[in-house]
Amino acid sequence: MSPSPRGQLHLGAFMRPTTIHTGAWRYPGAWPDANFNFAHLKRLARTLERGCFDAFFMADHLAVLNMPVEALQRSHTVTSFDPLTLLPALAAVTERIGLIATASTTFNDPYHVARKFASLDHISEGRAGWNIVTTSNPDAALNFGLEAHVEHGERYKRGREFYEVVTGLWDSWADDAFLRNVETGQFFDPAKLHVLNHKGPEFSVRGPLNIARPVQGWPVIVQAGASEAGRQLAAETAEVIFAATPTLADGQRFRADMHARLAKAGREADSLKILPGAFVVVGDSLEEAEEKRRTLDSLVHYQSGLASLSIALGHDASGFDPDGPLPEIPPTNASQSSRERVIALAARENLTVRQLAQRLGGYGGLAMVGTPVMIADQMQQWLEEGGSDGFNIMFSHLPEGLDDFVGKVVPELQRRGLFRKQYAGTTLRDHLGLQRPANRFFA
Amino acid sequence: MSPSPRGQLHLGAFMRPTTIHTGAWRYPGAWPDANFNFAHLKRLARTLERGCFDAFFMADHLAVLNMPVEALQRSHTVTSFDPLTLLPALAAVTERIGLIATASTTFNDPYHVARKFASLDHISEGRAGWNIVTTSNPDAALNFGLEAHVEHGERYKRGREFYEVVTGLWDSWADDAFLRNVETGQFFDPAKLHVLNHKGPEFSVRGPLNIARPVQGWPVIVQAGASEAGRQLAAETAEVIFAATPTLADGQRFRADMHARLAKAGREADSLKILPGAFVVVGDSLEEAEEKRRTLDSLVHYQSGLASLSIALGHDASGFDPDGPLPEIPPTNASQSSRERVIALAARENLTVRQLAQRLGGYGGLAMVGTPVMIADQMQQWLEEGGSDGFNIMFSHLPEGLDDFVGKVVPELQRRGLFRKQYAGTTLRDHLGLQRPANRFFA
Repeated sequence: MSPSPRGQLHLGAFMRPTTIHTGAWRYPGAWPDANFNFAHLKRLARTLERGCFDAFFMADHLAVLNMPVEALQRSHTVTSFDPLTLLPALAAVTERIGLIATASTTFNDPYHVARKFASLDHISEGRAGWNIVTTSNPDAALNFGLEAHVEHGERYKRGREFYEVVTGLWDSWADDAFLRNVETGQFFDPAKLHVLNHKGPEFSVRGPLNIARPVQGWPVIVQAGASEAGRQLAAETAEVIFAATPTLADGQRFRADMHARLAKAGREADSLKILPGAFVVVGDSLEEAEEKRRTLDSLVHYQSGLASLSIALGHDASGFDPDGPLPEIPPTNASQSSRERVIALAARENLTVRQLAQRLGGYGGLAMVGTPVMIADQMQQWLEEGGSDGFNIMFSHLPEGLDDFVGKVVPELQRRGLFRKQYAGTTLRDHLGLQRPANRFFA
Repeated sequence: MSPSPRGQLHLGAFMRPTTIHTGAWRYPGAWPDANFNFAHLKRLARTLERGCFDAFFMADHLAVLNMPVEALQRSHTVTSFDPLTLLPALAAVTERIGLIATASTTFNDPYHVARKFASLDHISEGRAGWNIVTTSNPDAALNFGLEAHVEHGERYKRGREFYEVVTGLWDSWADDAFLRNVETGQFFDPAKLHVLNHKGPEFSVRGPLNIARPVQGWPVIVQAGASEAGRQLAAETAEVIFAATPTLADGQRFRADMHARLAKAGREADSLKILPGAFVVVGDSLEEAEEKRRTLDSLVHYQSGLASLSIALGHDASGFDPDGPLPEIPPTNASQSSRERVIALAARENLTVRQLAQRLGGYGGLAMVGTPVMIADQMQQWLEEGGSDGFNIMFSHLPEGLDDFVGKVVPELQRRGLFRKQYAGTTLRDHLGLQRPANRFFA
């Protein structure tokens, strides 16, 4: 392993959906089928690899999301590749970039998950990562024979045991188990095979896994849960967190909390990299970037935006005048910080109700909009002030937004010594500066 | 679709394990890790594609097979890639060859299976096939939380409903559902989306699938079951059968039986292609081919071979003199045809007990051993006399056995007009001459 230098950013590319912004597929020059065209995705993955990205990251859903048809029929995410099918294909046409797939612990069997990630790790020669999710979307349950969704606490209990089984299966074989001795005919050393025999409250799995230990020992463990149970699971198991902290102050609080939890769990701070999602719009001037974002937001359907606005305000916004300013609204029990942020945003940018709705319906989280220098400034500040260890980048539109990031922002980060100019190692663990885990059954 | 000319062979390559012969990994010059080296598999897949093979076929197991450690430690199959991880990777580095993966209906969820095969079919632009198995290996159950194996009839009942759910999910979207209208913002036409709402004795699956209808409508449906229940399921659903008929007469009987069942099910005979597994050893002379096979067999461990011999005889052979001839054995209730075949083989080739055991422990099924002309003669006879529609080729050793088949046998078949010189179409259905299924929910 080649540890990454201190003080450098780690960058993931959030690629499912390829553009989180709901209007981006309609942007002039954009690929409307970017989400679902292998040739496009291959080209994008190779560009990201030229930009030395740590990883290509795929979120996932196990259902077509349950939205009113008026909004659903406008969603470019209803058809997407399955992550564990797409990433092996991208592994075959790239050489260094990490490949992180989401897989649910609620709607899978641990034997399949252990095997598929091990297989991806071998095919990619050590570039796999597993984003562990417990799947909060209740529609998924209906595709897997359950009438009601599995309750939150139960999902996390199952998730924790699922992780134990999967990592135990990955350790089925010592790293040097396979002798392949042509003379004697001995293919492996039986003393280097461990049968897991797991019997727990949720799972009963004998093992061993029918594939050699992954190249990385274990694929990199990624998580995104922000709840109390999610944070605790991450503190015990995660090596990367895909965070959703909208401001630097939020990022600092979250990172400090996670570092405290790590210390309690007996782990070093640098054994976990925290990467907030960041929606990035690049322009040659601030005005150009802002104009791009205005155009993007204008392509969001008003009905979709209204739903997001109503949630953020804790108040039904459908009766508001779309072309007027945000009216005064009575207080509620909903999140005050969320409402205050929306009111402040409307005032700061002088947005109509329609524009505000479209902004939130496009993408309402952390956004960096400006020139490459301005975006690099923000990233540097987050890094230096302890807000994150890098970012999971959400591109504004494809291919241009991604090409601009790799062609303009990455060189600026490299000039500042904040980002690698070439890969130092070959595995995702190398890129992230993470240790290779020891095999729990073999010294 | 370009229907394949009548009277042509269809050829699959049986690639998991890469060599079914248990001694082949030790053959001089063979790749001991062929089963588990992506660079090797890529090279082999590309060679098969140069040879215009219909498909790369992967069997599968959901466990390390339960053998005595003395035999297990000699097996090159204990570590293998997962088919649905390897085939997308091979799709990215090939252009025409079909890609058939095995997936079990007993240890999977139909939503995952439908989605992964649809994803593979899109990534490969229409080259996916699903080999439906119900998994007879009882060790698999122990890796999936079951104490006892699922009973045979129950497995087939579940398999039949599983198939209905998967094909129903593939039909979730009309072929022309996706408008991607950048002007209006309409991504798909809601009238062309069908929600399955399946509720049956085994499964309850709402749908729709979160991926567009596969390029082939449905990936090609493959089966291998030879039992009464397996044949009936195949007659109702299969488009390719991977058969295990050891002689031409067996092949003729099996094919006639399947054609009768097809007719009863209201299907045309040419909607099903029957491909027996054929172990092929190519030599420049018959003597060279036979010598290769002798060498291969001599690399099989005697203990592994004894187990196969005892099963075939219905009698424990471990007390026999390994270097003597096969002794007289008392009659039993075991299969007489299997025993008689073994006794005849020993007499015909004048084999000792050891040689006989090693032959059966290496590969005991249909074998074609000889020059390219002799092998082409046999294949032509099977085709012309109604024994099969082609073969699923098991190569003797890798890479040489595969290279020899593509370099020497394929040209001989092409010279005779029995095999394509180039792919006429682009999809696996094109190669096999199979219709694209209509969508059951949309005209």
